[in-house]
Amino acid sequence: MTVKYIYNLNEGSGDQKFLLGSKGANLAQMVRSGLPVPPGFIITTEVCLKYLKDPKIMDEIWGGVQESIKTLEKEAGKGFNNNNNPLLVSVRSGAAVSMPGMMETILNLGLNDDTVKGLSAASGNERFAFDSYRRFIQMFSSVVDDVDSNKFEHVLETVKKKLGVKFDNEINAEELKKIVAEFKKIYKESTGTDFPTDPWVQLRKAIEAVFKSWTIPRAVTYRKINKISDDLGTAVNVISMIFGNLGDDCGTGVCFTRDPSDGEKLLYGEFLINAQGEDVVAGIRTPVPIRELESKMPEIYKELCRLTNQLELAYKEMQDIEFTIERSKLYLLQTRTGKRTAAAAVKIAMDMYREGLIDKNTAVARVSPDQVEHLLHKQVDRKAPQDVIAAGLPASPGAGVGELVFNADEADAWAKQGRHVILARPETCPDDIHGLFAAAGVITSRGGMTSHAAVVARGMGKPAVCGCEEMTIDLAAETLTSRGRTFKKGEIVTVDGSTGRILVGRVQLLEATLTEDFKQILTWTDEIAKLEVWANADTPEDAKRAREFGAKGIGLCRTEHMFMESDRLPVMQELIVADNLEGRLAALAKLKVMQKKDFVGIFKAMDGFPVIVRLLDPPLHEFLPKEPTILEQLANLEKQGKANSGEAIVLRKTLEKIHQLHESNPMLGFRGCRLGMVYPEIYEMQIYAILEAVAELKPQGISLHPEIMIPLVGTKAEMKYFREMTDRIAEEVMKNAGFKFDYLCGTMIEVPRAAMVADQLAEYAQFFSFGTNDLTQTAFGYSRDDAEGKFLFHYIDKGVFKENPFAELDRDGVGALMRISVEKGRAFNPEISIGICGEHGGNPSSIAFCGSIAMNYVSCSPFRVPVARVAAAHTALGTLK
Amino acid sequence: MTVKYIYNLNEGSGDQKFLLGSKGANLAQMVRSGLPVPPGFIITTEVCLKYLKDPKIMDEIWGGVQESIKTLEKEAGKGFNNNNNPLLVSVRSGAAVSMPGMMETILNLGLNDDTVKGLSAASGNERFAFDSYRRFIQMFSSVVDDVDSNKFEHVLETVKKKLGVKFDNEINAEELKKIVAEFKKIYKESTGTDFPTDPWVQLRKAIEAVFKSWTIPRAVTYRKINKISDDLGTAVNVISMIFGNLGDDCGTGVCFTRDPSDGEKLLYGEFLINAQGEDVVAGIRTPVPIRELESKMPEIYKELCRLTNQLELAYKEMQDIEFTIERSKLYLLQTRTGKRTAAAAVKIAMDMYREGLIDKNTAVARVSPDQVEHLLHKQVDRKAPQDVIAAGLPASPGAGVGELVFNADEADAWAKQGRHVILARPETCPDDIHGLFAAAGVITSRGGMTSHAAVVARGMGKPAVCGCEEMTIDLAAETLTSRGRTFKKGEIVTVDGSTGRILVGRVQLLEATLTEDFKQILTWTDEIAKLEVWANADTPEDAKRAREFGAKGIGLCRTEHMFMESDRLPVMQELIVADNLEGRLAALAKLKVMQKKDFVGIFKAMDGFPVIVRLLDPPLHEFLPKEPTILEQLANLEKQGKANSGEAIVLRKTLEKIHQLHESNPMLGFRGCRLGMVYPEIYEMQIYAILEAVAELKPQGISLHPEIMIPLVGTKAEMKYFREMTDRIAEEVMKNAGFKFDYLCGTMIEVPRAAMVADQLAEYAQFFSFGTNDLTQTAFGYSRDDAEGKFLFHYIDKGVFKENPFAELDRDGVGALMRISVEKGRAFNPEISIGICGEHGGNPSSIAFCGSIAMNYVSCSPFRVPVARVAAAHTALGTLK
Repeated sequence: MTVKYIYNLNEGSGDQKFLLGSKGANLAQMVRSGLPVPPGFIITTEVCLKYLKDPKIMDEIWGGVQESIKTLEKEAGKGFNNNNNPLLVSVRSGAAVSMPGMMETILNLGLNDDTVKGLSAASGNERFAFDSYRRFIQMFSSVVDDVDSNKFEHVLETVKKKLGVKFDNEINAEELKKIVAEFKKIYKESTGTDFPTDPWVQLRKAIEAVFKSWTIPRAVTYRKINKISDDLGTAVNVISMIFGNLGDDCGTGVCFTRDPSDGEKLLYGEFLINAQGEDVVAGIRTPVPIRELESKMPEIYKELCRLTNQLELAYKEMQDIEFTIERSKLYLLQTRTGKRTAAAAVKIAMDMYREGLIDKNTAVARVSPDQVEHLLHKQVDRKAPQDVIAAGLPASPGAGVGELVFNADEADAWAKQGRHVILARPETCPDDIHGLFAAAGVITSRGGMTSHAAVVARGMGKPAVCGCEEMTIDLAAETLTSRGRTFKKGEIVTVDGSTGRILVGRVQLLEATLTEDFKQILTWTDEIAKLEVWANADTPEDAKRAREFGAKGIGLCRTEHMFMESDRLPVMQELIVADNLEGRLAALAKLKVMQKKDFVGIFKAMDGFPVIVRLLDPPLHEFLPKEPTILEQLANLEKQGKANSGEAIVLRKTLEKIHQLHESNPMLGFRGCRLGMVYPEIYEMQIYAILEAVAELKPQGISLHPEIMIPLVGTKAEMKYFREMTDRIAEEVMKNAGFKFDYLCGTMIEVPRAAMVADQLAEYAQFFSFGTNDLTQTAFGYSRDDAEGKFLFHYIDKGVFKENPFAELDRDGVGALMRISVEKGRAFNPEISIGICGEHGGNPSSIAFCGSIAMNYVSCSPFRVPVARVAAAHTALGTLK
Repeated sequence: MTVKYIYNLNEGSGDQKFLLGSKGANLAQMVRSGLPVPPGFIITTEVCLKYLKDPKIMDEIWGGVQESIKTLEKEAGKGFNNNNNPLLVSVRSGAAVSMPGMMETILNLGLNDDTVKGLSAASGNERFAFDSYRRFIQMFSSVVDDVDSNKFEHVLETVKKKLGVKFDNEINAEELKKIVAEFKKIYKESTGTDFPTDPWVQLRKAIEAVFKSWTIPRAVTYRKINKISDDLGTAVNVISMIFGNLGDDCGTGVCFTRDPSDGEKLLYGEFLINAQGEDVVAGIRTPVPIRELESKMPEIYKELCRLTNQLELAYKEMQDIEFTIERSKLYLLQTRTGKRTAAAAVKIAMDMYREGLIDKNTAVARVSPDQVEHLLHKQVDRKAPQDVIAAGLPASPGAGVGELVFNADEADAWAKQGRHVILARPETCPDDIHGLFAAAGVITSRGGMTSHAAVVARGMGKPAVCGCEEMTIDLAAETLTSRGRTFKKGEIVTVDGSTGRILVGRVQLLEATLTEDFKQILTWTDEIAKLEVWANADTPEDAKRAREFGAKGIGLCRTEHMFMESDRLPVMQELIVADNLEGRLAALAKLKVMQKKDFVGIFKAMDGFPVIVRLLDPPLHEFLPKEPTILEQLANLEKQGKANSGEAIVLRKTLEKIHQLHESNPMLGFRGCRLGMVYPEIYEMQIYAILEAVAELKPQGISLHPEIMIPLVGTKAEMKYFREMTDRIAEEVMKNAGFKFDYLCGTMIEVPRAAMVADQLAEYAQFFSFGTNDLTQTAFGYSRDDAEGKFLFHYIDKGVFKENPFAELDRDGVGALMRISVEKGRAFNPEISIGICGEHGGNPSSIAFCGSIAMNYVSCSPFRVPVARVAAAHTALGTLK
């Protein structure tokens, strides 16, 4: 049995995405559903993968391609390489997962000096025929032979200048013929060979170029950012050309079955009369809203509404549809699941649920954790004074502030220095992807809601204002001019992507609020998820916010921040500088009163929920002033003749302590429970403060679940020591209180050794909480501060990592340690509660991993709780892995 | 069936050490062999362990004790609590593993005001009877009721002063009677009760005191240092008293069947006429050499020689025997395997092999890796000028230099500050053990070769000079006076334990040399061991030394030390300060020439053996001068008006680079292969230098096995990158050379993630080498520099660790990571070679672990190669685990 490498559109079906690509499979499905689709065939992704290993596969499939073209000729009633009624085809890439604008496309293939005349005759439009021809040469040269596109653009610009016209479509047929000749000359100069006139040669080269486009850098980058496997390959769609630019009874457009920015149920989109599809997608001409089609072509509009509705009902999903009208006949060229903003995702999911199209689980699955992240994006404060620079299309919601930059490389470079940038471009193209990724916001002077900048920005959840035509961007001078004012590189602007405005300076931004629809989705997540979502919170305010966002507990309450407050820091310093136990106990007595108050506040806020309090973690030197500050103060005292004052003595003592405490690698030094082992009185004070707060609150009817967490444990002996300390103090506090209360004592797992001896730790630890920030540092041997500044970006650039392992949990290494911990911990105590409190606790992929090893909860910052809840639900649904 | 808790000596046998204790089992075996042993019985270790959990066990065994005493009365022909012919017993501890002097002993038990008269009558020696009585009261009070021994000593001193005599045995019977009364008063004052007169009460209390002595601090410390389990417990030996102090036809002594300091085959030991055994062991009187017994008691001496010879032949091991002569009758009180110096261990093993007593394996097993370490100890250079302070017994060989201290606590404290100390004491006792452990050498003014200080120092391999009676130690003034000179605390002295001399100041020390016997043992180790021993060496000299010591390869050749040499450092700095690739390449070209020369040297030295070269590892800033140095140089240039000179410009550039390279945690920073990823040209240069050296040497007939090792690898992508780099360069070098050569490219495993993904690394790495220094740091999250100075000693004190994990491999954590690496690496490539090149590679326990996970080799410093070879053999023999 031979493998089937080529499918006619009427042979495939919608479920063959991985073989036929998403675009091809959808077209095939549309044919099955009787929708008006131009005839064509698909070369499978398998051929692409084989081709990339060994181009000889082309010989093997070539006979099939020729046969398919013959079939196509019959279906279209035209002839390939036929001078009278030539069949032209588009050759497009189509991967299983949509990668808009990333790979190559060639239109109008089949034209040469002979067939162009046939096209001219058949269409009765010579200008159209030669415009198609010059477009074809331009695209083919650039895509197949890498000829610099600017050379062609330059010719076009010169001609338009000469003619005194603005748009390409204003160039007449005679000029276009000259342009074609000019273009062929450019081709020959650039490649050393004549432009191929044989349509079969053109076709073969085009197919190969599409295959190769799978591995061009911008496509690789896109896959990296969007976590798409490199092993999928692209199919090639060879489709009979349909022309939207034969005259005013023609047109082309893109539409969505619902509004992709807010989710409203209406036909949403844009179109252009007398244009090819590329004009819309590339944003070269600014299209008009789809509603205008109703007045211009009422029958077509009605038909479009009917067909798109049919498609949405069939897919039970919002569709993104490309259409072309050729001489008043409507063709659908493509349908796919429409990308949408987070707000739209929520509304569409809930609307479809209410319409009975989908169930609860599907509704939740339709809102991705990444989208939730965008939902929580900031907005411009409407009440703040706003000085508008320019207004354009609200292409991607949210708001961002940053310094103006005018090219993607600089955006990328500045962002790597930690600066916030706004990328301003006339329009963006796939090569700008790294700049878009780096920017806090995007503005373009050209292009519509479906332009490259708009689509990408929405995908990334960045605010974007597009098609802001009143604004002039001078790339050479690196300035933006609008309404009589000019802004230079580096000036701060605010992008309001929700309203489509660009504002002067840094405007006040507001946090997001939650809609009722979103709250419903979140409520459902709790029914679906197996992982609970807790929050990291150090103050009663944070704790309250966490509850509001739906946290089911506090997974990490850091006590050190409490010591950093201005009224406490001096007492903490007193503690550190003390020479002896007596001095330390005196300072600790004062600190205990303060700490207890903190815990009372947090416990009250979390009435009914568990609260995990981590004992002192950072190295002591973090609480002392910096050496230069002290030296300066000392110098001042000396100047005043107070070199021997009490103050000077304390300063000198502090200085001595700073030197004593100096460490070559503080991250691996005297911190965490090591402090508690050497100075047990510090941890004792904290345990007293926690448990005395419990004893105070319990009679007030507050439901308390305090959990004491020991940081940086690496050995069983440490855990035993602190568990016994906790039990001893608890017994004393309960005795004094005259009643019993519940409490737990557990450990963080944040050094690899703790993972390896988790069974031993479980003998004394009543819960585990992964501190994956430190665990990542120690597992890799990376100091986060140093790595991110010095080599980590090289590593991501070189593909060592797909993601920064501090942002997304490294499953093979850190994850493997976590898996061992869970297995060993549960082997000793099957009931032990295991969670995570590192930053990864709010990262969807990391949450999916936590779910996969049957952990009990994730804990993240209060603002990320909704993201985590949705991620936890997706994990349970299997839509996040 | 009831458990047998009590064994008569004639019921046990030599193989019941764990039940009867080593001493009891040996006595029982001696009875079996027909040797003259005093009658007695043993209460088992099991009873001890039960007693420590619940003292009620005493009631259960008490009937048995009473019956055993009855049997003893018959055997000894005396009566317990019999006023006419009283049976006195010794009650001694006896653990399975000998712990000399650590636990309690009570002699002469059974005496009271009535029985003492019987003893006096039966022995015809009133002085002896009352001396025994006062000794008994003193020991019993101190051991059972913790009465301060000094109170009794004070009474004795006062009496001796009054009488004008020097020794205890010069006190007459009348005075001793008064002393007994005085002692009983002291007992009553201290305990509030009368001294127990009932021998049965005495016996019961004594047995309980011995049980309890298992857990006294000095015993616990000793077990910790000697790695003896706390779960063994001690047996109690109740033996009929034999008296060596009834007159001049009596005596007591200790002897070895071979000389424990050099292994010579002769009866070696010491004795005292008219003395109890405790006088010898405690070093209170300085005994005379055993040979003098021949002239004084020729028959006894002949008998002793015959019996001890019989014992050695029976045990096929050198024996340490205690004997007592009571009225010209010889009794053997104890025999055990004799402790010996390392030199003696080697000679005895080889002699016994030559005598046909033991085979090769046993001979190797008789020399422990720890002893080999001592064999390699330093010796005083005989040619250096030597100013002798005092001469005493050469109690423990080797030599040490340090500051004089006069008490154990101070020795311990100073050593913890990193100072080298010599502990000087009149004599030492078990409570001084931490001071002995801390000292670089020990000197005592009293005591013999078997005194506490001597035994312990030999066990620890510390140089010791004992019984140096010409020297006066004033503990109050903290001075040492000898030959008219006085030395104070803190003054530097040299201890020559091999010749028994104490020398002024810091005398030149020489490294050890290897005897032929020792070389033979080492040769055998290679036949026995499964692990190969390689060495870490950076220079041809080190490589040669490593070969001389028997290394089978270089497991770690660090290239960074090569860059540190004075002619190279400026070029290295040029490389680091260079702004661009061009500048770096220029510096690298110079460095390559130098590096290649280094490799040529090392490869020549290691002709026939593998050499693993590790590419650049440390952070670049280590090669730059320190900031203050540069600032000073700049200030000088400014003063000279050369602020803008070329030199100043370079300095400022260097300064800038130092700031750029600054890291908060350099240990976890931009180092190892991270440098090679960001600056591939550096690693490329090194690989060229290595492989070009190979290409140069191969035609000279030198057999080469170069292995290129990539440091700090944590991901498969890194390993792939450098493997491909190596293969590419190798291909080029081979092409240029016109011939092929072998090489390997592998990785260190020194971060936990590398262990977790070892199967992935094995796809590209051709060998693994554990860098356990860094792996220990990252697994625990300890910066070694910081931990050892700040909290690690607390951790060892608190028992979190038995050993510093940087000295002895942590099996549960780091070891578990290694085991995973081996399993995963071998799962992908069963043939992959796996070794260790961290410091643990020279530590016996760590070597045993490496053997247990089936690694291929260990690599250590050249000087430790012999230790490692013996350890590897012991691992294979199962005598090291």
